[in-house]
Amino acid sequence: MRPNGRAVTDIRPVTFTRHYTRHAEGSVLVTFGDTQVLCTATVEDGVPRFLKGKGQGWITAEYGMLPRSTGSRMARESARGKQGGRTMEIQRLIGRSLRAAVDLKALGDVTITVDCDVLQADGGTRTAAISGACVALMDAIWWMQAQGKIKVNPMKYLIAAISVGIVEGQPRCDLEYVEDSSAETDMNVVMSEDGRMIEVQGTAEGEPFSHEELLELLELAKGGIDSIFNLQRQVLNEG
Amino acid sequence: MRPNGRAVTDIRPVTFTRHYTRHAEGSVLVTFGDTQVLCTATVEDGVPRFLKGKGQGWITAEYGMLPRSTGSRMARESARGKQGGRTMEIQRLIGRSLRAAVDLKALGDVTITVDCDVLQADGGTRTAAISGACVALMDAIWWMQAQGKIKVNPMKYLIAAISVGIVEGQPRCDLEYVEDSSAETDMNVVMSEDGRMIEVQGTAEGEPFSHEELLELLELAKGGIDSIFNLQRQVLNEG
Amino acid sequence: MRPNGRAVTDIRPVTFTRHYTRHAEGSVLVTFGDTQVLCTATVEDGVPRFLKGKGQGWITAEYGMLPRSTGSRMARESARGKQGGRTMEIQRLIGRSLRAAVDLKALGDVTITVDCDVLQADGGTRTAAISGACVALMDAIWWMQAQGKIKVNPMKYLIAAISVGIVEGQPRCDLEYVEDSSAETDMNVVMSEDGRMIEVQGTAEGEPFSHEELLELLELAKGGIDSIFNLQRQVLNEG
Amino acid sequence: MRPNGRAVTDIRPVTFTRHYTRHAEGSVLVTFGDTQVLCTATVEDGVPRFLKGKGQGWITAEYGMLPRSTGSRMARESARGKQGGRTMEIQRLIGRSLRAAVDLKALGDVTITVDCDVLQADGGTRTAAISGACVALMDAIWWMQAQGKIKVNPMKYLIAAISVGIVEGQPRCDLEYVEDSSAETDMNVVMSEDGRMIEVQGTAEGEPFSHEELLELLELAKGGIDSIFNLQRQVLNEG
Amino acid sequence: MRPNGRAVTDIRPVTFTRHYTRHAEGSVLVTFGDTQVLCTATVEDGVPRFLKGKGQGWITAEYGMLPRSTGSRMARESARGKQGGRTMEIQRLIGRSLRAAVDLKALGDVTITVDCDVLQADGGTRTAAISGACVALMDAIWWMQAQGKIKVNPMKYLIAAISVGIVEGQPRCDLEYVEDSSAETDMNVVMSEDGRMIEVQGTAEGEPFSHEELLELLELAKGGIDSIFNLQRQVLNEG
Amino acid sequence: MRPNGRAVTDIRPVTFTRHYTRHAEGSVLVTFGDTQVLCTATVEDGVPRFLKGKGQGWITAEYGMLPRSTGSRMARESARGKQGGRTMEIQRLIGRSLRAAVDLKALGDVTITVDCDVLQADGGTRTAAISGACVALMDAIWWMQAQGKIKVNPMKYLIAAISVGIVEGQPRCDLEYVEDSSAETDMNVVMSEDGRMIEVQGTAEGEPFSHEELLELLELAKGGIDSIFNLQRQVLNEG
Repeated sequence: MRPNGRAVTDIRPVTFTRHYTRHAEGSVLVTFGDTQVLCTATVEDGVPRFLKGKGQGWITAEYGMLPRSTGSRMARESARGKQGGRTMEIQRLIGRSLRAAVDLKALGDVTITVDCDVLQADGGTRTAAISGACVALMDAIWWMQAQGKIKVNPMKYLIAAISVGIVEGQPRCDLEYVEDSSAETDMNVVMSEDGRMIEVQGTAEGEPFSHEELLELLELAKGGIDSIFNLQRQVLNEG
Repeated sequence: MRPNGRAVTDIRPVTFTRHYTRHAEGSVLVTFGDTQVLCTATVEDGVPRFLKGKGQGWITAEYGMLPRSTGSRMARESARGKQGGRTMEIQRLIGRSLRAAVDLKALGDVTITVDCDVLQADGGTRTAAISGACVALMDAIWWMQAQGKIKVNPMKYLIAAISVGIVEGQPRCDLEYVEDSSAETDMNVVMSEDGRMIEVQGTAEGEPFSHEELLELLELAKGGIDSIFNLQRQVLNEG
Repeated sequence: MRPNGRAVTDIRPVTFTRHYTRHAEGSVLVTFGDTQVLCTATVEDGVPRFLKGKGQGWITAEYGMLPRSTGSRMARESARGKQGGRTMEIQRLIGRSLRAAVDLKALGDVTITVDCDVLQADGGTRTAAISGACVALMDAIWWMQAQGKIKVNPMKYLIAAISVGIVEGQPRCDLEYVEDSSAETDMNVVMSEDGRMIEVQGTAEGEPFSHEELLELLELAKGGIDSIFNLQRQVLNEG
Repeated sequence: MRPNGRAVTDIRPVTFTRHYTRHAEGSVLVTFGDTQVLCTATVEDGVPRFLKGKGQGWITAEYGMLPRSTGSRMARESARGKQGGRTMEIQRLIGRSLRAAVDLKALGDVTITVDCDVLQADGGTRTAAISGACVALMDAIWWMQAQGKIKVNPMKYLIAAISVGIVEGQPRCDLEYVEDSSAETDMNVVMSEDGRMIEVQGTAEGEPFSHEELLELLELAKGGIDSIFNLQRQVLNEG
Repeated sequence: MRPNGRAVTDIRPVTFTRHYTRHAEGSVLVTFGDTQVLCTATVEDGVPRFLKGKGQGWITAEYGMLPRSTGSRMARESARGKQGGRTMEIQRLIGRSLRAAVDLKALGDVTITVDCDVLQADGGTRTAAISGACVALMDAIWWMQAQGKIKVNPMKYLIAAISVGIVEGQPRCDLEYVEDSSAETDMNVVMSEDGRMIEVQGTAEGEPFSHEELLELLELAKGGIDSIFNLQRQVLNEG
Repeated sequence: MRPNGRAVTDIRPVTFTRHYTRHAEGSVLVTFGDTQVLCTATVEDGVPRFLKGKGQGWITAEYGMLPRSTGSRMARESARGKQGGRTMEIQRLIGRSLRAAVDLKALGDVTITVDCDVLQADGGTRTAAISGACVALMDAIWWMQAQGKIKVNPMKYLIAAISVGIVEGQPRCDLEYVEDSSAETDMNVVMSEDGRMIEVQGTAEGEPFSHEELLELLELAKGGIDSIFNLQRQVLNEG
C-alpha cells in the first residue's frame, strides 16, 4: 500500500496559485502534496553575452531550497559559498525544459529568469518546479504581451513533469519522499502538451532496470503528466 | 498623507502564522503589510566549536531574500558565491537580538538556527524577521520541552522590532518601501517585553538627526512594538 | 551520410589502454574516435564522513576537461574558482553509474576515486569516461585483491555507456562533435552487462521526441554498448 | 575604577598624524590610546556602475585588521577567501558616515575610497576609524582642490565617532578592550560638527537597557565627540 | 649511484611529440623520463585589459597537475575552489620565461595562452613544462604565419629549462622525484639558446649552499639545457 | 646617477624598530628607505596536520600589502576573495627562508606565523620583509625561552635579504621602485650569516643575463646583506 492509500497511477493533489507574490511578472506557488515550490518569472531586457546579436531571447532558471524545507536542516548555499551539484543539475534541467517550450526567436531581445525556490520538500521538487515554472512563464509572457513588448505568444505548448519510480518492485507515479528515498529506480519525465518527450532521466538506484520496466514507467508518467496539463490549463483559464 | 491613509503612529496589519511549514521545530510566516518573511527554527544537538565545554547553548540566525522578493530581481547570493554585506549585517542583528531573549546556560548543549527568508519585501524585512523569529523560537523551545530535552523554558521575555523613520520631515512608524526609500532618517529598534531596548540602530540617510527627533522616533517605536507584542502573545496563546 | 562514412549503427573505433600512467591503482586511456579521456582510479582507506560506521565502501568520480581539449579554449575551472554545472552533472553521473556496478558492502572501508580527464574532445566524453572508468575501476579492484585488501571481487558486472541521438531526423549511434552539436535529440545510456539500464538521459535539444523515437534510440544504444562490452572484456583478459 | 584612572567622561589620548604614508591623497594614523588605525583616502576618476550618469560622486570605505593587531592572531581574511560579517558591517558603517558628511553632487565624477586598516586594536577601532577617515578625507578633498579638480569644498562638516557603554552598571565614554569585552551595553555614536547624529548603534550585550541609560550614554558620547572635533580641527589647521 | 645508473651530468631521456592533440594551434607532449606534460598553445585575438592600446601582444601560461599524476592523489584544484601557491608560482614562472623569448611588439594584437598539464609526475615538471611549452609556442607562431596573421617570426630564440640540485652532497643534473625529495639544494634554471640566463631559482632545502656549489650547479644546468636545445631543434626541423 | 646619489653598492637607510606593536610575541617595523613593512611573529601551540606526530615545529609566513601602500590603489585581496599569485609566491619565499634559519626539531610542538604587512612600498618589499621577519622571529623565540617553553635557542643563524638588479646596463644593489620598474634583470638573494645562500631568484625582465652579470649581482648582494646583518645584530643587542 502507498502512503495515503494512493493507487500506483495516482498523482498527489496538485495546485497552482497564480500571482502568489506581487513583484514578479509571473509568480506561482505550486504544490504536489506537501511539496511546495514558489516559481517566479522575471522579464529583463537584453540577453547574455553569448547570445548578443543572434536575434533571439533567452530563458534560464535558478533553483534553491530553503534550509529547513527538508527534514533535517541543509546548509545555506550562499553561506557555503557555492551551489551544490544537485542544485546545478536541477536548475539546468528546468532551464532546458522551459526553453524547449518557447520559440526563442519570437521572444525578442529579452531574458526571462525563472526562480524556483522550495519552501517545503516532500519528493518531486524538480518536477513540481518545472510544472509550476511553466505557468509562471506563461503569466510573464502574457505580461509582455499586455505591455506591448511582443505581439505573438512565443509559447509553443505547455510543459509539465512528473517523477515515477519502482518502489518495492512496483512501478508508481509521483513519488513522495518516503517512496523516493527507498526507490530502486527513479525517473523524471518532462513532456510537451502533444504527448512527446522533452526530458527523460532514469536512474537505477539499486538494481538496473529492464526495458519493460522502462516502458511501464513511461506509461505511468504519461498519465500523471496529462492530469497536470489539465490542472495547468484550468488555472490559466481562470486568469 | 501616508500610503493607505495610515496615521504616523500606525503599524501595518501584522500577522503571524505558526506551523507554516511542517519540518521545522518552529515555523512562522510573519507579514507586516506586504512584507512576508518565513522564519523557521531548527534545533540541533551540540554547539559551535568556540563554545565547546562552556556549559551553554547557542542561537544563531541566517537571513536571505528570494531573488524576486523585490521590485527588480536581485542576483541569487548562492550563485554569486557569497553573501552580501547587507545580508551579513541583518543576520548578525537577528542572531544577537534572539540571544538577548534567552538564558543560553539554561538552553543546554543545543544550537538553534533561525532561518529568515523573505518571500516578499515591502520595507521592514529585518524587523518583521526578528518579530517572527521570536515566535518560531518559542515554538522550537516548546518542542524541546515536549521532547523532554529541557524542563524550564529559558526564554526570558518576548522580543519584537519595528522600523521608524523621518519621511518628508515627519516621524513615522513602520515604514513601507516607498517611505523607507525616501526617508531622511531610518531607525530600527528591538525591544524586550518589559519596554527596555535590545538594539537601536539609527542612520541619517540625508541630513543628520537631532536629539529631539531621536526621542520622537523612540516613542513611535515603543508604541508600534507594544502592538506587536500583543499580537505575538495572542498567537502564542492559540497554540 | 555520416562523417567517415559510418552507418547509423556504427560506433567509432574504441580503444582502451590499461596502465597508461604509472602511479594510479587503475589507469586507462579510453578513446572513442578522436575523443580521448584519461581515467585513473585511486584507492584510499576510509570513507566519507556521511558513511562512517555504515559498513560499506564508497566510489566517487571527478571529471575535468583540459582547457584546450576543445575547439576553442575553455577557461580553466581551477582558475575560475569553481566547477561549472556541466562538470558537476557529468561527474555525478559517472559516480552513480560506477556505484551501481559494485557491491559497496563487499568493498570494505575504502574509497575509490575515479578521475576522468578529457585530453581531447570530439563528442561523447561522458560516455567514453564511464566506459573507461569501468576498466580502471576493475584494475583498481584487482590491485586490492592482489594486496590482500579484499578476497572477493565486489564488481557485479561491467558497465558501459554510449550517446545516441537524432541528427537530421535520423537516429544515430555514438555521435561525434559535429553531429552532437546539431542533434535534435541527444541521449546518453548506461547499461550493465546483462542488458539492463543504469541511466537513461534523453534531452530534446530542438523538437520533443516521440515514444517511437525513444525506442529506436534505445535499440541503437544497446547495439553500441554491446560492442563496447566486447572490447572491455577483451582488454581486461589481456591483463 | 577605570583602567589608567580615567573618569567615566574621559576619552583616551587621541592623536591624528597626517601624511603618515606618502602615496595616498589623504593618509592619517589615528590613535585612541593603544588603538591605532591607518586611514588612507584614494581619489579615482569615475563612479561605480550604479551611479553612472547620475551627476554625483561616491565615497566608500574598506576596513581590515592586521592578523596580529589583536591579542590572539586572527585568520587573514584574504587567505580565508572572504571578509567576515563584522568587517562588512564596519566598513558599511564607515562608508555611510563619510557620505553623510559630503555633498556628493558637488564632488564630481570621482570615487574616494577610504581604507581603514587596524595596526593595533584596543577597543573602539570602528569609531577611531571614522574619526581618522574624516581627516584623511579632508586631506584628499584639499588635494582635489589643489589639483583644480573641484573649486568648492563639498565637505559639509566634520564627523567624529566614539563608543560608549555600560560597564559594571556604570555608563562610560570611549571603552577600551577590557571594558568593551565585559560591557553590558555597547553603543557607537557618529555625529556631525553641529551636534546632530549620523549613526547611533546601541546593543545590549547582556541585559536590555532602559530609556534613561540610553540618554546617559548619548550625553557621554556627545562630550567625547566634542573633544575629538577639537583635535581634528587643531590638526587640520596645522596643515 | 643515481637511479638508472645516470652520471651526475646526464639528463633523463627527453622526448617532444608535436601535434599531440588536434585542436590547439601548438600541442606538444614533453617527457623527461617518467615526467609527462601536455603543453598546448592557444592563439586568441586581443590582449588583456592592462595592455589595451599599448601596441603589443601577450603570452601567458597556466599549469595544472592531474589529480593522480602523483604517487598519492592530490585534491583537484577546481573542486577545492582555488589554485594553490605552488601552482601559481609555477605558472607565473612559465609565463615569464616564454615572454622573455618573444618580441611581444612583433606578435601583434594577440594573446597566446600555453596550458601545461602534468599527466604524470616524476620530478622536474616545471622545467619539462617550460621546455615543451617553447616547442608548442613555436608551432603556434608558425600557425600564425601560415594564417598570414604575422609575417616575421617574433621568437627571438628557443628557451629550455632544467632542474639541478645537490643530493647526498653531490651536485646532479635533472633530478627525478626520489632525488628531488631528498635534495639539500634545488635549483631551476631557464636559459636562452645563446647561453644566457632567463631565470635562476635556487633554494636551500636543508643547509644553505655556498658560492662554489652555486657555480657547479649552474655548469651542470648549462650542459643539460644544451642537450635539450639539440632535441628541440631536431624535433622542430622535422615539422 | 642613482636616485639620492647612491653608489651602486649602497643600500638605502635601513631601520628595525622592535616591539612596534604590543600584542605579538615579536613585532618589528622594518624600513628600507621608503619601504615600510610591519612584521609580527605569533607563537601558537600545535603544528599543522601534515606534521602531527613528526616531532618538529613549524614556521610559516603570510604577506599582504595595504591597498594604498602603492602609487595607485590595489584591490584589497580579502574583498576580491583570494590572494594573488604574487602574494602567494612572496609568502612562500618568506616562509621557506625563515624555516632555513631554524632547527625545527628543537622548536618543539609550536607553530610560529610571521605576518609581513606592507604599510608603504618603494621596491624591495619581499627582501625587507625577510630581513625584518628574522628579527621578529628572534624576539618570538626569546619570548618562548623567557616563558620556559624551550631551553635552547633553535635559531641557527640570522638571515637577511636584498634585491639587486641591472638598471640601464649597470648592476646595482637594493633597487627602489623607480629602478625596479625599469630593471633589465632583477634578483632577490637571501643569505645566512655565514655568507652562504638560502635563496637566489634571478629574473631577466628584458634581456637574458650572462654568467658574468650573475656573478656581479651576487657580489653586490653579499655586500648589501652584510650591512643588514650588522644592523640586525645591533638592534638585537639593544633588546
